[in-house]
Amino acid sequence: MIVVFKKDAKVTEIEEMKKSLEDKGFHIHESQGENHYLIGLVGDTTIIDPDVLKAHRIVEKVIYVQEPYKKANRRFNPLDLVVDVGGHKIGGGYFSVIAGPCSVESKEQVLEIATKIKASNAGLLRGGAFKPRTSPYSFQGMGKDGLDILIEAKKETGLPIVTEIMSIKQLEKYHEIIDVVQIGARNMQNFDLLKEAGKINKPVLIKRGMSATIQELLMSAEYVLAGGNNNVILCERGIRSFQKEVRNVLDLSAVPILKAKTHLPVIVDPSHATGSWQLVEPMAKAAVAAGADGLMIEVHNDPDNALCDGAQSVKPEKFDSIMKKIAAYIELEDKILN
Amino acid sequence: MIVVFKKDAKVTEIEEMKKSLEDKGFHIHESQGENHYLIGLVGDTTIIDPDVLKAHRIVEKVIYVQEPYKKANRRFNPLDLVVDVGGHKIGGGYFSVIAGPCSVESKEQVLEIATKIKASNAGLLRGGAFKPRTSPYSFQGMGKDGLDILIEAKKETGLPIVTEIMSIKQLEKYHEIIDVVQIGARNMQNFDLLKEAGKINKPVLIKRGMSATIQELLMSAEYVLAGGNNNVILCERGIRSFQKEVRNVLDLSAVPILKAKTHLPVIVDPSHATGSWQLVEPMAKAAVAAGADGLMIEVHNDPDNALCDGAQSVKPEKFDSIMKKIAAYIELEDKILN
Amino acid sequence: MIVVFKKDAKVTEIEEMKKSLEDKGFHIHESQGENHYLIGLVGDTTIIDPDVLKAHRIVEKVIYVQEPYKKANRRFNPLDLVVDVGGHKIGGGYFSVIAGPCSVESKEQVLEIATKIKASNAGLLRGGAFKPRTSPYSFQGMGKDGLDILIEAKKETGLPIVTEIMSIKQLEKYHEIIDVVQIGARNMQNFDLLKEAGKINKPVLIKRGMSATIQELLMSAEYVLAGGNNNVILCERGIRSFQKEVRNVLDLSAVPILKAKTHLPVIVDPSHATGSWQLVEPMAKAAVAAGADGLMIEVHNDPDNALCDGAQSVKPEKFDSIMKKIAAYIELEDKILN
Amino acid sequence: MIVVFKKDAKVTEIEEMKKSLEDKGFHIHESQGENHYLIGLVGDTTIIDPDVLKAHRIVEKVIYVQEPYKKANRRFNPLDLVVDVGGHKIGGGYFSVIAGPCSVESKEQVLEIATKIKASNAGLLRGGAFKPRTSPYSFQGMGKDGLDILIEAKKETGLPIVTEIMSIKQLEKYHEIIDVVQIGARNMQNFDLLKEAGKINKPVLIKRGMSATIQELLMSAEYVLAGGNNNVILCERGIRSFQKEVRNVLDLSAVPILKAKTHLPVIVDPSHATGSWQLVEPMAKAAVAAGADGLMIEVHNDPDNALCDGAQSVKPEKFDSIMKKIAAYIELEDKILN
Repeated sequence: MIVVFKKDAKVTEIEEMKKSLEDKGFHIHESQGENHYLIGLVGDTTIIDPDVLKAHRIVEKVIYVQEPYKKANRRFNPLDLVVDVGGHKIGGGYFSVIAGPCSVESKEQVLEIATKIKASNAGLLRGGAFKPRTSPYSFQGMGKDGLDILIEAKKETGLPIVTEIMSIKQLEKYHEIIDVVQIGARNMQNFDLLKEAGKINKPVLIKRGMSATIQELLMSAEYVLAGGNNNVILCERGIRSFQKEVRNVLDLSAVPILKAKTHLPVIVDPSHATGSWQLVEPMAKAAVAAGADGLMIEVHNDPDNALCDGAQSVKPEKFDSIMKKIAAYIELEDKILN
Repeated sequence: MIVVFKKDAKVTEIEEMKKSLEDKGFHIHESQGENHYLIGLVGDTTIIDPDVLKAHRIVEKVIYVQEPYKKANRRFNPLDLVVDVGGHKIGGGYFSVIAGPCSVESKEQVLEIATKIKASNAGLLRGGAFKPRTSPYSFQGMGKDGLDILIEAKKETGLPIVTEIMSIKQLEKYHEIIDVVQIGARNMQNFDLLKEAGKINKPVLIKRGMSATIQELLMSAEYVLAGGNNNVILCERGIRSFQKEVRNVLDLSAVPILKAKTHLPVIVDPSHATGSWQLVEPMAKAAVAAGADGLMIEVHNDPDNALCDGAQSVKPEKFDSIMKKIAAYIELEDKILN
Repeated sequence: MIVVFKKDAKVTEIEEMKKSLEDKGFHIHESQGENHYLIGLVGDTTIIDPDVLKAHRIVEKVIYVQEPYKKANRRFNPLDLVVDVGGHKIGGGYFSVIAGPCSVESKEQVLEIATKIKASNAGLLRGGAFKPRTSPYSFQGMGKDGLDILIEAKKETGLPIVTEIMSIKQLEKYHEIIDVVQIGARNMQNFDLLKEAGKINKPVLIKRGMSATIQELLMSAEYVLAGGNNNVILCERGIRSFQKEVRNVLDLSAVPILKAKTHLPVIVDPSHATGSWQLVEPMAKAAVAAGADGLMIEVHNDPDNALCDGAQSVKPEKFDSIMKKIAAYIELEDKILN
Repeated sequence: MIVVFKKDAKVTEIEEMKKSLEDKGFHIHESQGENHYLIGLVGDTTIIDPDVLKAHRIVEKVIYVQEPYKKANRRFNPLDLVVDVGGHKIGGGYFSVIAGPCSVESKEQVLEIATKIKASNAGLLRGGAFKPRTSPYSFQGMGKDGLDILIEAKKETGLPIVTEIMSIKQLEKYHEIIDVVQIGARNMQNFDLLKEAGKINKPVLIKRGMSATIQELLMSAEYVLAGGNNNVILCERGIRSFQKEVRNVLDLSAVPILKAKTHLPVIVDPSHATGSWQLVEPMAKAAVAAGADGLMIEVHNDPDNALCDGAQSVKPEKFDSIMKKIAAYIELEDKILN
């Protein structure tokens, strides 16, 4: 961490700050430029809040050299993490496709979709029982009944289930019956929920917030990891932009950047990103080629009458054709679809 | 709501959809263009989820004419809402300044700040007891002890208190001792929390999410209003952008736009938006001139040693000088500072 | 085009506008809702400036149904355009890789790079003679001498050359000796330059502006096409965002969206988008998988000492390895590398 | 400038780079951290292209401490620049309002508007003779005839004229008859045009590009200043964002930031930013309160029939009322309207 002082900072003030930093165990390197005086801190700077330093009236800016995350940092975890969900693997060369409807609507619907995606080689079943909806007048999900349907589909097909949890209460009640707990984009910085997710013994899939930086996503993962839960999966699902033709802009460069910075698996959700089923196939292929460890794809047996997000859902037949196409790309990437 | 059909939509499919919409009580106007066929729906379209229509394979696009919010809509509430916080008024010509430290750090700190901002004519005291922090290693707030300090400061000064609540549990436990419940930007779409906030009997201040549209902010307010709580205050606090010189870009055009669309009071937080105390004064004045109903300003007695966000906090003396300057602007706007 | 009138618009005013539109040859469909009155225009609406309609005080909003571009519209050009550059083909199943240094620095440099990229199966040589630089103190390009070097490299290798033109004067002087005229991102809306580019007999490659929408890019192409030049290539090169880890966010969803809306070839520049050579390979592969018709990749023999953009340039050996890897992806996409 | 080296950089490579920098006259300060080795450069770093340093494979990042602009830098020009346009002053306490139609449409139109805005105390007349339009099918301006009309209006009213120039050819032909040469947002990084603008003897008003950072805007000003033209005025006119309710988000925080970084006058264009005449008044007042040195406001005598941008134009009577309202704000800011 580098601290640049203002031109008019008094020597006594600078000395005071240096002393306080040395007392915290840092070594200090100084550099006097023509217009600026700056110091470099040597030591574990993750324990310092840069805001606290920036607040000093004598400080012009504070520059990070070291990343503020430790447990999510590949520097300290050189090997890829392989998340194991009841035998199914994600990361470290194992490619995983999570598929299913946006929301659970009925037993028939979920069973039909689950059977079909299983036949197309999907590895996990997704489905929303608790739905974050922009409007209070939109369908809010089936709740506990929806979870029961997912569990039944798991029994029938053997597919582990991934589902979103929106509050601590839901997490406490239901995490034991869910295989992968999803934290949605809108809750990526619901820190109280992240803290609780750090205490459970189930993998947590964190979706990137709509305007979250790469570092903020990693810091949210750090919350879960710091709580003792080592199994975190990250998911890129598009960011807000002036672009009007898609719901969000899928930031595929996030995939290789994240893979370089962290050992955690990184998957991509082309359905929510684009909001358009026609774009799912090209973006799914592109995600594989960019190095993703998996995909999350919305599949609906009757998107015309879906209760939510039908426009972005592909039909089971289309999903099957996408799976066949991406298989070749996964092979080119030397990964194993499971 | 206008539904534009695809060129290759079959007549039978269109007729089927029209029938289903008429069954829901809508009147339908048709228009056949050279390249497009479209229908207009007449009726209360807030009950339709446009996603459901868009999902139909025969639909090219769905265009809103009517807003999807009702209780937050000025069309149905022509008069400005005046929120009354224990006699202190916000909105409808009453201008209100909420001031205080980012986080509660000690009794001495809060009492000193509260006494000083009261002397400078602030109307409410803010202070964070539960803090949403990007890093799990940063100071997370004093919790319940922090609330107790705020309440003591209220007793001493008479200033009602505004504080952020981050989870349903906290809301249930503490809403009775708080005067205004703040929902932070990161929780603007924590819909479970918004639903609970709709059930309490205290004003709710909702901060705009970092990449929330105006309509999404109003839909979040609609969640609270739909729950039965009529007292909602909106707060613009900057949006994410490529601009690197400020933490967020303060979107002051949101103020007159919101004032036209809703009857709810709209306040502005120049401290969090800019992240820089030097910008608080010009942006506070600009907010008043843009038509805001109030301001939220971070004040710290010793920003150099603040545990959080010191860089954006002004000292009490600076706050006093800002209050003196904006008084003239408030008067020009024909509003009453209280 | 749909025109929604304000609630308080007078019947006489509406009738006046309707008459004026009918006089322009439009048929008008009317629809009276509960809260809104709207009309649909049937006819060639590209001749109407929607701003002119929006300006009327009685108009609430104007909604496009038809796209405002004609010559760039796939609706009227269902077949893919194949741009032929001296026998080398781009689009319609032909995949093309344009490679070379950011700027021409010396004859030795360009000849060495050109020979190597030719050996690696690049189809065209790029190199900047006129450089748009943010700082007036940065290297501005070798100018005419740079062009001469490119032409010599073309003679040696047979590779057609692609180079940026920054002004009408340069276009007039040099378009005859250039094979593909590049309009840079910063000049995407330099309309006077686009108009002149419409008059020449050489293919024009237009790079998407840093905050240009898909429609704006297509309208810039329309300028060139409307001038009589049918050979336009579009290039996605990243858009501005809050994301700090990359220079720009590569918007790969733009590829399938553009391919659906226009018959023009669409290529991708992963070098300028990301600003980082490490990201070129994954993003190049992803671009192929997303359906791009070609790539533009910066290659430098000595990036450590490049006069411009060295950080995003790959070395010839790395380029060779990228070409080998993407070959398999191009084949999967059923395209022919030439 | 600080250069952070990669962990695996070899000592010999680092020594080589240090030597090369010392040869360029820099003093070097070193700092060895636990995970990083970095050096600080002392000297005039504006002569170094940071891209060139970043390109070195041993460099992890390059951090600016000093700004890359000199002539636009307040550090070297502590006093506000007052631009004098034929006796009319902008900056340094003089507040200036530039008003007029988006485009010149007829002699009658311009004379009527000019007379009225003069009566309302506008200081300069604006009007477009050459218009940058997104569509090639939209009205492109009256050209030279439009300039003649502006000059006639100047003769009648005494108001100096501000008009946009889109190409070097236009600049060469017409700069002598124009009082303030405007470079539009889309041409902010048309560097060839900026260079030519540096050679003329007329003030240049540069509008901020739609996704330009503060620093890029200052670098564009630096192009003009470096050419020898000292009279540059900057104009904030809104930036691109996900916000759909306005055309662009007016970034008023840019005003105090620019005023701190440069001595050049900063004005605000609320008309183009918002795209909506209803928002002009609140944003104009807010701009004054934020510290702007002037405003640029579109006024049209008959916006319903304007050939361009009518939706954002106010009528002369509304303009008069805005001028009366902002007068009080200008006075509060201790500025003189001229």
